[in-house]
Amino acid sequence: MNPDFLSSCPIPLQQYPHILMAHGGGGRLMHQLIEEMFLPAFGTHPHWQHDAACLKLPHGRIAFTTDSYVVSPLFFPGGNIGSMAVYGTVNDLSMSGAKPLYLSLSFILEEGLPMATLWRVVQSIQAAATHAGIKIVTGDTKVVERGKGDGLYLNTSGIGIMEHPWNIHPKAVQPGDAILLSGDLGRHGIAIMAQREGLAFETTLESDLAPVSDQVQALLGAGIEIHCLRDLTRGGLATALNEIAIAAHVTIELEEQYIPVSEEVQGACEILGLDPLYIANEGCFVAFIPANAVTAALTLLGSHAPQTKSDLSAQKIGFVQKSSPNQNSSFAQGVVKLNSLIGGSRILDYKSGEQLPRIC
Amino acid sequence: MNPDFLSSCPIPLQQYPHILMAHGGGGRLMHQLIEEMFLPAFGTHPHWQHDAACLKLPHGRIAFTTDSYVVSPLFFPGGNIGSMAVYGTVNDLSMSGAKPLYLSLSFILEEGLPMATLWRVVQSIQAAATHAGIKIVTGDTKVVERGKGDGLYLNTSGIGIMEHPWNIHPKAVQPGDAILLSGDLGRHGIAIMAQREGLAFETTLESDLAPVSDQVQALLGAGIEIHCLRDLTRGGLATALNEIAIAAHVTIELEEQYIPVSEEVQGACEILGLDPLYIANEGCFVAFIPANAVTAALTLLGSHAPQTKSDLSAQKIGFVQKSSPNQNSSFAQGVVKLNSLIGGSRILDYKSGEQLPRIC
Repeated sequence: MNPDFLSSCPIPLQQYPHILMAHGGGGRLMHQLIEEMFLPAFGTHPHWQHDAACLKLPHGRIAFTTDSYVVSPLFFPGGNIGSMAVYGTVNDLSMSGAKPLYLSLSFILEEGLPMATLWRVVQSIQAAATHAGIKIVTGDTKVVERGKGDGLYLNTSGIGIMEHPWNIHPKAVQPGDAILLSGDLGRHGIAIMAQREGLAFETTLESDLAPVSDQVQALLGAGIEIHCLRDLTRGGLATALNEIAIAAHVTIELEEQYIPVSEEVQGACEILGLDPLYIANEGCFVAFIPANAVTAALTLLGSHAPQTKSDLSAQKIGFVQKSSPNQNSSFAQGVVKLNSLIGGSRILDYKSGEQLPRIC
Repeated sequence: MNPDFLSSCPIPLQQYPHILMAHGGGGRLMHQLIEEMFLPAFGTHPHWQHDAACLKLPHGRIAFTTDSYVVSPLFFPGGNIGSMAVYGTVNDLSMSGAKPLYLSLSFILEEGLPMATLWRVVQSIQAAATHAGIKIVTGDTKVVERGKGDGLYLNTSGIGIMEHPWNIHPKAVQPGDAILLSGDLGRHGIAIMAQREGLAFETTLESDLAPVSDQVQALLGAGIEIHCLRDLTRGGLATALNEIAIAAHVTIELEEQYIPVSEEVQGACEILGLDPLYIANEGCFVAFIPANAVTAALTLLGSHAPQTKSDLSAQKIGFVQKSSPNQNSSFAQGVVKLNSLIGGSRILDYKSGEQLPRIC
């Protein structure tokens, strides 16, 4: 590890090389951690040390969301649990069209976690929050005994403000809607799997982890009537579209030829026996919009794309049809159909189990 | 366990007696858990299944807070991790005088957790949220492998609305303020320790876990000018008052004779070598108010006290003085002094370490 990085740690590493139970005990060591590491890193918001943050919101509807992060390993190509906890919640807020404003941050630390690891994560959280333009306003720190955690878990909850007139929700999806995909699939899941399994790629495959709030705000700013947005995390594209099809009582028809998947991801999926349509992403989403807005929307998605390693761009991947009354799916109210490259057509259903545990 | 209770579990226990990794995998089993157990229990709020809840708040300032709960054991006399996660966050919101409105709920489940245990916790969460009048509007579920957790951890974040004109904050504390304590000390910490250590008491000592929002709203409703509120969780009364004294640059003077501690807690503290002034509580708080409001406030605290097992009532326990310039404390800007029962006076400082790990 870079010695400059270590020397910047505000907690003396020789004295406290690891997290102790007392760092969660409410006493002097916990105060030191909060006052010397967390407060300077996350800005001196006046409410960090009080029980709750007092916030004045602009008038309007708000979005409120929560996620706990248990990703393993803590560090992966393209990100780590800290940047993921910030961008993941920023993206969840963005999926209701909300402009992300405020974040809470709660640590569950395992006794024995290297202090230097915590410092790296804290610095990533700080950088990600700055990049995404969201303020961390309140937090919490708990410590569990060795063997009762896995280094560290994080929870972020977020508040955003909705400045648009739409009701962005699965139930607002309508037959005739076009479905746009903001980027290529599978890079997050495959980057994590490659790290776990020690797979080597010719080039470094990185997670697509990134905030998508700029893309969403660009669509809204242009007055595009967004019916639904969904980020493609656990369960990937296929699961997200199933949830939406069921909620909206519609059939979703996809054209495989337009679904962007990089050669590296495709190759890794073949080796690992995985389907990119079910793999988690952390920087792309689907948008359901009226068909006449597709060209404008694709241009905006391209010009506001997050800066991650990909040459593939946003695509229209399918459209919404009225649900036919005589379908055979076990979920009678909604179906996702894929027209494949080789000419056939198949139903994409939920998977029962677990492709990739602890992906987020 | 009560067979009626088990038969009410909406997940078939013979088929799924334990949490599997797939319950966090984004597929069919996770959807079953959310749709069959969580949604019916927490109300069919329309936004549980979307990425974020869309909320319309009354006009005004809001409070926003977060806490992760890692209490061990999961069940203790007077409560469990579920009721604690609801009331703890309700109380944090109350400490800014906010009326609690909305809660997020995030589970980190350990593979192998008995499904019946999760069901008990979910039912407690439901009952506690109903009792406290707060709506659970958004959630998240993660599963970690066996040996990477401790049954279950919870995070709740909360949003409340401030309908009062005050700036309730440690920095608003003024010399001359009276300090009220809303109930007797130490019952939560001692109930947990007794459970862990197998201590037997003549009567059942229960945690004081309870929502204090009614007491706070009663004070505000009567127009009492509240300067600061603080619930007495990790680190107990002494730690909370140190934080406030330091933030407000004042000396806090306490009279030990007025600090209510039950005989059972006092006795257990003597056996265990603990100081009740540093023990966590989950249903009492201190209020800093002008001296002329003390009588009215004590009456209101008494008439709105939570229904937990105690005969001891709210007391004025001390007052705030200007900080003297020549003090010897390592924290020069704030001091907590205790005038003891036997006539002496001592400084109550932070403790370095950890009296009671995983108390909340």
